[in-house]
Amino acid sequence: MEYKELREEAYEANMQLPKLGLVLFTFGNVSAADRNNAVFAIKPSGVPYEELTPASMVIVDFDGHTVAGKLRPSSDTQTHAVLYKHWAGIGGIVHTHSTYATAWAQAQRDIPVFGTTHADHTTVDIPCAAPMDDERISGHYEFQTGFQIMDCFTAKNLDYQELEMILVGNHAPFTWGKTAAKAVYNSAVLETIAKMALLTEQINPSAPRLKQSLIQKHWQRKHGSDAYYGQSGC
Amino acid sequence: MEYKELREEAYEANMQLPKLGLVLFTFGNVSAADRNNAVFAIKPSGVPYEELTPASMVIVDFDGHTVAGKLRPSSDTQTHAVLYKHWAGIGGIVHTHSTYATAWAQAQRDIPVFGTTHADHTTVDIPCAAPMDDERISGHYEFQTGFQIMDCFTAKNLDYQELEMILVGNHAPFTWGKTAAKAVYNSAVLETIAKMALLTEQINPSAPRLKQSLIQKHWQRKHGSDAYYGQSGC
Amino acid sequence: MEYKELREEAYEANMQLPKLGLVLFTFGNVSAADRNNAVFAIKPSGVPYEELTPASMVIVDFDGHTVAGKLRPSSDTQTHAVLYKHWAGIGGIVHTHSTYATAWAQAQRDIPVFGTTHADHTTVDIPCAAPMDDERISGHYEFQTGFQIMDCFTAKNLDYQELEMILVGNHAPFTWGKTAAKAVYNSAVLETIAKMALLTEQINPSAPRLKQSLIQKHWQRKHGSDAYYGQSGC
Amino acid sequence: MEYKELREEAYEANMQLPKLGLVLFTFGNVSAADRNNAVFAIKPSGVPYEELTPASMVIVDFDGHTVAGKLRPSSDTQTHAVLYKHWAGIGGIVHTHSTYATAWAQAQRDIPVFGTTHADHTTVDIPCAAPMDDERISGHYEFQTGFQIMDCFTAKNLDYQELEMILVGNHAPFTWGKTAAKAVYNSAVLETIAKMALLTEQINPSAPRLKQSLIQKHWQRKHGSDAYYGQSGC
Repeated sequence: MEYKELREEAYEANMQLPKLGLVLFTFGNVSAADRNNAVFAIKPSGVPYEELTPASMVIVDFDGHTVAGKLRPSSDTQTHAVLYKHWAGIGGIVHTHSTYATAWAQAQRDIPVFGTTHADHTTVDIPCAAPMDDERISGHYEFQTGFQIMDCFTAKNLDYQELEMILVGNHAPFTWGKTAAKAVYNSAVLETIAKMALLTEQINPSAPRLKQSLIQKHWQRKHGSDAYYGQSGC
Repeated sequence: MEYKELREEAYEANMQLPKLGLVLFTFGNVSAADRNNAVFAIKPSGVPYEELTPASMVIVDFDGHTVAGKLRPSSDTQTHAVLYKHWAGIGGIVHTHSTYATAWAQAQRDIPVFGTTHADHTTVDIPCAAPMDDERISGHYEFQTGFQIMDCFTAKNLDYQELEMILVGNHAPFTWGKTAAKAVYNSAVLETIAKMALLTEQINPSAPRLKQSLIQKHWQRKHGSDAYYGQSGC
Repeated sequence: MEYKELREEAYEANMQLPKLGLVLFTFGNVSAADRNNAVFAIKPSGVPYEELTPASMVIVDFDGHTVAGKLRPSSDTQTHAVLYKHWAGIGGIVHTHSTYATAWAQAQRDIPVFGTTHADHTTVDIPCAAPMDDERISGHYEFQTGFQIMDCFTAKNLDYQELEMILVGNHAPFTWGKTAAKAVYNSAVLETIAKMALLTEQINPSAPRLKQSLIQKHWQRKHGSDAYYGQSGC
Repeated sequence: MEYKELREEAYEANMQLPKLGLVLFTFGNVSAADRNNAVFAIKPSGVPYEELTPASMVIVDFDGHTVAGKLRPSSDTQTHAVLYKHWAGIGGIVHTHSTYATAWAQAQRDIPVFGTTHADHTTVDIPCAAPMDDERISGHYEFQTGFQIMDCFTAKNLDYQELEMILVGNHAPFTWGKTAAKAVYNSAVLETIAKMALLTEQINPSAPRLKQSLIQKHWQRKHGSDAYYGQSGC
């Protein structure tokens, strides 16, 4: 089997989605990239998770062309391809319709940073990209979704290596990371942050954002040069 | 055993309801139709899911008369019969009291199309049929529930093959499809859409509906003549 | 072992509470009555469910005196005793702190009949008994809780054989039935109705109550003289 | 293995957190103290629960210095050390980011005592400590979190042996107890109380606090000199 390790990485990461409660049926997909060969492995379209195998993963290049695999790749494949092509530092991407993150995307609101659970992962509100304009929709839709995500990061001056998640307005979340496993981790974290943020506003409609000093402290202790969370300091 | 395959199809579909978290105790039922013989197999009334077997399914004709089976069929059997009789394109029907869909039915509101999770399955709001008038209630209630559903589709100019779900006001959801398995799938999708829509309104009480261009795009990519979701294009 | 069958009935019913998600730790108890011997078996106080055995059930008479068993009975035993003594038609009682029913009890509101899920089980709002007055609290508290429940039924002219559940204000729900198993069933139904009612009000703050004709129809089809739900018609 | 029993106690208690649904990934930690040796065993930082073993627990003294163990201790270790050093009556501490308790912490509100589920465990509102001031944040942050907690108890005249839980504003809950197992129990109770309190306010925005006579009654029956809950009366 070609790309055996890459397929296995993508398979294992895909299988985490139902275990973590992030997908109903086939409403999600994970890809894992091999930067040396400039390809990624992605879930086939519409195949139930319980029927997936490493061999069923589809190998696609960064222009979105299928390189290996018998099945049709995820309908979101072009979005993955665009992000891999333009963001050289990422090795895995996840798309889900997880309940709370999707509700924020449908509500077209950024998720405010209300506490340290959020600040442990990013210093900024989690942005909701504006719904796509009609010209782009009528073009290559999934391809344009990739640019919709990158445009939002550019417009808000965000760094995709510091913030590894976004809400696509009216649609649902995308997350990424250095590996597919890290991207899946980020999807679960985002769903939890999204739920906590809604509950926070319900408990106190005028709940203030976390203050800058605490945002910086929590980010630094996990990700700064003197990080002391975890076993390796990184 | 007569109608062995049909009973097994209905049995398997019924057993999905508790697995998907759509029923408490016996609050739901699935039927599967055999159009060649103009009958359907349906869950017996009030029997716990863990005691069901294919043999316990009841065979009923499209006028609601029991054809085979030792047990009394679901109390909702007449509703199923009416829908099979008048809607020739359906092969399975599900009724549940799933929590969020039932709450929308009790609230007597249509579920607005807020995002692509919804638009992947239908282009319109999911309608809530007005509560039944007293004359109908005092007649053959479950029989009239079938007409209540069809009247709502007629009044709103909806196509039962494009929209495979409805909320019955004050009561709970019904879904259907070409097969019993598809009807069960639709029940789970409806419950998810119902939960996301409530959360969306809680996050942003003035959340706008999805715009037409995105509704059409998501519907077409899954169901249009050039559909590219899944492995067969349909 | 004395009262072997009664202990087993109580044991089996108690073990359903964690399975149905109705209790955290030891926050609940079930009893089963033997009317011929005028005793009931009840969970011992503070013993985790995973350590329960039929032998650990405590046998108590209808005046609340322990008749057999090595352990101290549930701290709510006197409430059970009062209800068995005065309501001759019941054979099982359940007390839980299930999340949604307890929230309604804490909110001190009756649960309005919003739909057929509710009307399948009772024709009236599920009452919330007013918090106990201070004189009663300073007396035999759990004994008085029994009277608090019965007083509420008398004041609202309710029939304990038609409505098998109540919220005790500021506290939590009690349910009962002809058997312990039926009382447990009622606790799970109450929790579901309580959740659906809150969601209904969140979706539509002016959601109307179910109209009388539908309330009567659903009650009659399950419990009336011509009932046609289930296999025995009762 | 040094401190074998202590490590096992800490290990067992840590493993309860995912079972009780109180943590996502590594977002929590438990410690267990050995007062004779003035040390405690705590979870290593950032290690997934499924990889934990008793041997991986880290032994730390009450000044926060690692005494034994190959791994880096939890990043919250200094908070645990401060509490053990100053509160001589506690033998276990838990920190989680459980969803509902964290939402109250982010909302910066005390949890009002709305019912007996709450009063069974404490007679007062569960306090939310004010967010830390910037001077403390820029110092030894986790060390200062311990003082933030103790300052809140002093300012509100609370007794850490009667109230074994707190919300740290903008952050998340801490709980403690005579043993690590009791501290874990308190974390689960707090999460349940936090959820019920939010639901109570949603059902009735003007829900009143539990009256003093009921608060005292429920506290006394579980914890007073004449306590009659459980098998030992304590």
